[in-house]
Amino acid sequence: MQPPYYAVIFTNKLTNETEGYSEMAEKMETLAKQQPGYLGIEHAREALGITISYWESLDAISHWKSQLDHQEAQRMGKKQWYQWYTTRICKVERAYSFEKA
Amino acid sequence: MQPPYYAVIFTNKLTNETEGYSEMAEKMETLAKQQPGYLGIEHAREALGITISYWESLDAISHWKSQLDHQEAQRMGKKQWYQWYTTRICKVERAYSFEKA
Repeated sequence: MQPPYYAVIFTNKLTNETEGYSEMAEKMETLAKQQPGYLGIEHAREALGITISYWESLDAISHWKSQLDHQEAQRMGKKQWYQWYTTRICKVERAYSFEKA
Repeated sequence: MQPPYYAVIFTNKLTNETEGYSEMAEKMETLAKQQPGYLGIEHAREALGITISYWESLDAISHWKSQLDHQEAQRMGKKQWYQWYTTRICKVERAYSFEKA
């Protein structure tokens, strides 16, 4: 994928009440991949959880944010799973890669 | 920090030759924090490593990229530590946060 495109950086810290979280996270990743304008997703968690999803346009991000099952996941996240989170909407202006020979 | 500002998303996978890597990563994080225009850093690693650093401007990012000790770390990274990596330069256009009451 060639810039420009968009990234949603979702940084978060879980509470201790993580029942149901990993199932929902997996379900949301599957669902994200089915949305129009989806380009990719990357995640890792240690003390901090970071999920970055990539999108063709701001419209694609708005559409995904308002998707019904995703809204329910967001509601559950605030109610139970997340101690805090920050969401950043970004325009990817340049990208370069290295791969070992 | 209020948008707009900039983010460098550094996504990577390590080789099996990680000797010296964590010391260098720690040193680079300390050094990044001393650079002009530095705003913050977040990282997590599971199968994938993700480090996101935040900066006031593209100039601040260029300056950090060309810093001498950082260049040496980049050289070592390509030679030994990284199987692959992708660097993305992004403009953070919007951000919002949630924190549990």
